[in-house]
Amino acid sequence: MGFFSKDIKTMDDLFVHTLRDIYYAEKQILKNLPKMIDKATSAELRKGFETHLRETEGHVARLERVFELHGVEAKGVNCPAIDGILKEADEIAGEVEDKQVLDAALVAAAQAVEHYEMTRYGTLVAWANKLGRSDCAALLQQNLDEEKATDRKLTDLAERGGVNLAAAE
Amino acid sequence: MGFFSKDIKTMDDLFVHTLRDIYYAEKQILKNLPKMIDKATSAELRKGFETHLRETEGHVARLERVFELHGVEAKGVNCPAIDGILKEADEIAGEVEDKQVLDAALVAAAQAVEHYEMTRYGTLVAWANKLGRSDCAALLQQNLDEEKATDRKLTDLAERGGVNLAAAE
Repeated sequence: MGFFSKDIKTMDDLFVHTLRDIYYAEKQILKNLPKMIDKATSAELRKGFETHLRETEGHVARLERVFELHGVEAKGVNCPAIDGILKEADEIAGEVEDKQVLDAALVAAAQAVEHYEMTRYGTLVAWANKLGRSDCAALLQQNLDEEKATDRKLTDLAERGGVNLAAAE
Repeated sequence: MGFFSKDIKTMDDLFVHTLRDIYYAEKQILKNLPKMIDKATSAELRKGFETHLRETEGHVARLERVFELHGVEAKGVNCPAIDGILKEADEIAGEVEDKQVLDAALVAAAQAVEHYEMTRYGTLVAWANKLGRSDCAALLQQNLDEEKATDRKLTDLAERGGVNLAAAE
């Protein structure tokens, strides 16, 4: 989570720091999605990324509401995991020559991002409930549901929409 | 994926590089799991990590069989994503004071690792099938199934075994 974690003494501390980890991650994703949109060749993939960009803005806003409900400052902490995942995405996006292969690589990179978010939101929903913050859990669950839906759409796009298939031909 | 990706021209190149990405990741996980075992307080969590250490050795062996079947050298490529995820796990494992909070943090860290592996294996199974390598896909699916099972066990442990609950009390 990349925070100054000596301060973590209770589950509440861990919850707040993990909130800040995913808050940082969502903001980094917001910065990186336009680059992925520019690189995508398939109109359907580009449209999917554009939809997810708007959803990600909504996720940031929901996280800010969670911080507010929990009475803590909305701020990010350094998160080496999302930095690494986005670094990989950026490398692949910049370097693959064939457009269809690039689309397949972009889908895979986006799914790695989605899976990171899914695991963090899954953990945060569980912790919010244990801490008696069902109000926060409900908001975090909405973000989790949208990340899962995006991941499923990417799988459908790759398997049925022809991104992988076209690139493999 | 952290490889010298100018070499990626075809879906086959992308498949091989992604295989090498997860091969590197599995080997890094093998190095890091003993540290997580040492840090875990819950006997059940420690036992879960020990079981996963043995499974991870099996995953490396299966990947080596996939490389062999596909006729390419079994080697890793640098993978910033898993490096970042494990860096976060290491930071949290080294810094949280309370033992029960630490167990909750270790479960979350391990689930982030599992989710990275699940997304990469999911992609690799799909690509292997598109490339007509159902033999490789079957082996990769076995690794994927075991990662999913480990993730479910971690969720059960956190939610029912009392790791999160105890730490939240």
